[in-house]
Amino acid sequence: MLVFQKYGGTSVGSLARVRRCAERCLKVVEGGDQLVVVVSAMSGETNRLIALANELVDPASAEGSTGGPWIAANKRGGDHDREMDQLVATGENVSASLLAMAVNHLGGRAVSLVGHQLGMKTDDAFTRARITDVETSRIREELARGKIVVCAGFQGTSPAGDITTLGRGGSDTSAVALAAALSADVCEILTDVDGVFTTDPRLVSHASKIDRLCFEEMLELASVGAKVLQLRSVEVAARFGVPVHVRSSEHMGAGTMIVPEESSMESVVVSAVALDRNEAKITIERVADVPGSVAAIFEALAAVGVVVDMIVQNASTEGHTDVSFTVPGQELQRSVELLTARGSSVLADADICKVSLVGLGMRSHAGVAAKMFRLLAGEGINIEMVSTSTIKISVVVGERYGELALRTLHDGFGLGDP
Amino acid sequence: MLVFQKYGGTSVGSLARVRRCAERCLKVVEGGDQLVVVVSAMSGETNRLIALANELVDPASAEGSTGGPWIAANKRGGDHDREMDQLVATGENVSASLLAMAVNHLGGRAVSLVGHQLGMKTDDAFTRARITDVETSRIREELARGKIVVCAGFQGTSPAGDITTLGRGGSDTSAVALAAALSADVCEILTDVDGVFTTDPRLVSHASKIDRLCFEEMLELASVGAKVLQLRSVEVAARFGVPVHVRSSEHMGAGTMIVPEESSMESVVVSAVALDRNEAKITIERVADVPGSVAAIFEALAAVGVVVDMIVQNASTEGHTDVSFTVPGQELQRSVELLTARGSSVLADADICKVSLVGLGMRSHAGVAAKMFRLLAGEGINIEMVSTSTIKISVVVGERYGELALRTLHDGFGLGDP
Repeated sequence: MLVFQKYGGTSVGSLARVRRCAERCLKVVEGGDQLVVVVSAMSGETNRLIALANELVDPASAEGSTGGPWIAANKRGGDHDREMDQLVATGENVSASLLAMAVNHLGGRAVSLVGHQLGMKTDDAFTRARITDVETSRIREELARGKIVVCAGFQGTSPAGDITTLGRGGSDTSAVALAAALSADVCEILTDVDGVFTTDPRLVSHASKIDRLCFEEMLELASVGAKVLQLRSVEVAARFGVPVHVRSSEHMGAGTMIVPEESSMESVVVSAVALDRNEAKITIERVADVPGSVAAIFEALAAVGVVVDMIVQNASTEGHTDVSFTVPGQELQRSVELLTARGSSVLADADICKVSLVGLGMRSHAGVAAKMFRLLAGEGINIEMVSTSTIKISVVVGERYGELALRTLHDGFGLGDP
Repeated sequence: MLVFQKYGGTSVGSLARVRRCAERCLKVVEGGDQLVVVVSAMSGETNRLIALANELVDPASAEGSTGGPWIAANKRGGDHDREMDQLVATGENVSASLLAMAVNHLGGRAVSLVGHQLGMKTDDAFTRARITDVETSRIREELARGKIVVCAGFQGTSPAGDITTLGRGGSDTSAVALAAALSADVCEILTDVDGVFTTDPRLVSHASKIDRLCFEEMLELASVGAKVLQLRSVEVAARFGVPVHVRSSEHMGAGTMIVPEESSMESVVVSAVALDRNEAKITIERVADVPGSVAAIFEALAAVGVVVDMIVQNASTEGHTDVSFTVPGQELQRSVELLTARGSSVLADADICKVSLVGLGMRSHAGVAAKMFRLLAGEGINIEMVSTSTIKISVVVGERYGELALRTLHDGFGLGDP
């Protein structure tokens, strides 16, 4: 069997942890399997490098940088982004070589691959490159030599041979894309949680681990705020049908298998409930109800890189309509400024959150939305916006009702431990 | 003009210093020259990475590691050495991308090149690779685009595409080899001293800066303990005739030009005096005076990697002879153990040092050795060993006489400020 394992920054966050990862790697190959490992940078290292770059070009940023150093650094354009990628990729190089060293020291045989050695070809959109192709010959050679191959995650090379990075969380995507290219039997995402849960266990203590999910459900879950897997990695897994196993790097127990849809899956109406607090609502009043006026609003936002999530347009009265939509919380201010500058009458509300139900069974079971609304109404929670897909229902509610809504829906749909 | 500049670890040791390097780079191109920069890792970074690796494979090494982490790490063989190089090379990658970023931020245009982008081809002797070829197309392209090219020093790639490093001080060698391949007009080695001095200014305060030296003199000086330039980089410069300018990165004044021999140079009998304290003397008594017996001693030492420096064999008496030689101080103990185990009668003396005169004029001026011995005798300093080349005389004296010998010779030969 060809196994892929992806270790996140916490799993390789100290030398003691690197040693433990090495022991786990050896267990896999002792069982007769071939192993490719994809590693993130040691936790904190990527932020350290980004802070270094930010301080270099803007010494004032050394103190009081709040949350957005990545964005701040990225705003400086192409040449700067290219250097950021050359810089930041060193974080993964360090952890890859340390893990390979640790395996070798324990008597195994490992080799680390970084940069052009990986064969991960991307476009040249520095700091957010897209994978274009994977050239697998070097990895195959090393596997054929009996080696454990330790790949630096998060990075690739551009057509010109420059180092690129795949954007935050890119190591998951690296792992799944490499696993797809090598037709791996499974891609294990080793993390600090036991798997994917029916909801966030920090918010609902009796949330329970989900044994199996299909790609489509995981895609929806990742898109509505479940942070276990990066959305893009799930897209790649779904496209190439790579079975993904999300499991704990601590005890290596069975976690959550994410697989192609199975016939039994539709019997579960709702698989999970998710809460996303990082949303803000914008309402534009009295938009002229003529073709193109709404499109112009979203074109203007897209032009400056604001990703709009839910969109609701009310019925038109007297040739005008109200349009509401949500954006990531940190984009609220500049969105409002942009729209106001365009002459719109704008209402902004940062105190909202999004609660979502996801389940394959929704496709064939009627009345899920009705039951959801009734459960929320029973707790006196007002619904401000609704958006649906075939296997998902999301509602926007006041931020202070978020956790109550989550618990109510989780228990109302019979999720979690009995 | 095509200018190369090499910045050492201290010159890029902080973000403020990186910024200052960037300003200096911009001055060069503002003058109309093309510029390639070669950087070392930020000071301390290489040692930090090596310590990380050593602690990983030997947690006890975390405390009380004394001086030899590099050697300790290197002893673990091929796979380990390969990973060490992948790991340690990241130090130069970081400083290269930071310097390129700083140049861009100041309004210049720079690009950093690392790993395979450099075109620095080496063999696969990890941690001490030899340069086999330099593929200059990428650097030429970037120069043609008007960029300042910032190269990560110290590293290359093996035929298999693995990262290699050139051994300690390898950034000087990188700079000179790249400068040679690109037929640079000058390779500036920017450092924390003003140039090459008539002797170590910390020991002789009135030592003076040498304006011009020929490659041969610099080679001898580097081999007898002058630490300004790495011996290997001088060899490469000499082989390809690359003019090297050793100058201060602080004030960028005229330093020491190291150039092909010029006709006027022979008029200077002695250019510099050097002291090397890192030597120890071994004498083997009563070696059988038959062919091969002395060779066997040095073969045994070479087999374990001990580099022998001076060798003196006394006249034979009654079919036996005494052989004395010097080894690096840190190799004394294991050399003595090895030789004793082979059955030799060994005398060891760690309390010695080597004092050397270097000067192109020695080739044509008689009596330099005689004057040297007379000057030392005048101070009551006993000479224990002598070794000569066409442009160098080295003597071994008791360690406590080292500085006195240095000052005596420096002034006796009229070096230094008047």
